[in-house]
Amino acid sequence: MNPAINYCCHCGAAVSQRVPAGDTLLRAVCDACGAIHYQNPKLVVGSLPEWQDKVLLCRRAIEPRSGKWTLPAGFMENHETLPEAAMRETIEEACAQVEIGAMYTLISVPHISQVHAIYRARLLTLDYSPGIETLEVALLAEHEIPWEDIAFRTIALTLRHFYADRKAGNFGFHTAELRPNGSPLAGRPES
Amino acid sequence: MNPAINYCCHCGAAVSQRVPAGDTLLRAVCDACGAIHYQNPKLVVGSLPEWQDKVLLCRRAIEPRSGKWTLPAGFMENHETLPEAAMRETIEEACAQVEIGAMYTLISVPHISQVHAIYRARLLTLDYSPGIETLEVALLAEHEIPWEDIAFRTIALTLRHFYADRKAGNFGFHTAELRPNGSPLAGRPES
Repeated sequence: MNPAINYCCHCGAAVSQRVPAGDTLLRAVCDACGAIHYQNPKLVVGSLPEWQDKVLLCRRAIEPRSGKWTLPAGFMENHETLPEAAMRETIEEACAQVEIGAMYTLISVPHISQVHAIYRARLLTLDYSPGIETLEVALLAEHEIPWEDIAFRTIALTLRHFYADRKAGNFGFHTAELRPNGSPLAGRPES
Repeated sequence: MNPAINYCCHCGAAVSQRVPAGDTLLRAVCDACGAIHYQNPKLVVGSLPEWQDKVLLCRRAIEPRSGKWTLPAGFMENHETLPEAAMRETIEEACAQVEIGAMYTLISVPHISQVHAIYRARLLTLDYSPGIETLEVALLAEHEIPWEDIAFRTIALTLRHFYADRKAGNFGFHTAELRPNGSPLAGRPES
């Protein structure tokens, strides 16, 4: 979560919250230097690494959801492409070498202003190990997936698509939006 | 473009540029309150509205590329989904009502830290008009597309895919990365 904007990061003056000319939303505006401080959704990008009939999962060493299982993924950085971000995160979280394939799921999570993108990936070697934000890395068969201990709903949805598509013999590209748990729109698919 | 980070937007102290513990990249870090000011790529989201054999284009009233033609698109806002962003931008830029369809192109533009996402869309009525950032809105047939005056390469690539797919009778989902013009990697497709 980004810190609240109270001061102008450019000149240090206090900002005001107002709708700039020609805009429709409240922004943090600096009346001293004129800077407008936009805040926009963040991309979380990762991979679903496959090895034979197994997939690679990571058990998280950090909050949120420390101790829970996830796919290797994290915030996209400036100056990289989507597949570069997926590969970097797979290296950082699981010290794993992968060949990044097609984009597999792209899920809007509007209540936390994130978009999660997961690529299919081929694990290239069995030489993997936990990165600094990971407790444990494991290759798991479908019956070994800890469904009750998956850290994020976007990851559980991605894994459900994966096993359904594998059974059907046809891997599509899936988009969705996930609302807060308990919302009437929770989990409503976009397409 | 976001302003340079010189001061902490949370507490107003001067920041230092350093690599936080457990991180690998330089960040603007506040030594007074501990806030870390991450900067991440922005999503630009829009639509490709179709009406019979024509598509809706907008001529830009603002920089960059004022006077050039584009699809209705803009920065995704916090708390919205990707298709909601596509629909909002279509209303803002072209005052046009559309039904948003499938995601069509998703293009990384790493040198400007952006990801551009364009949805297919069905124009619902002919009641459209220029929004505040638009000079002119037009429904154009393929032979009328002003290829030399398209504002952004991601939009030109999206339109090229559209006409190729329409000719082939099969609309796929296309991902790509666009490097700076003149780069050896310029326009290299991801998939």
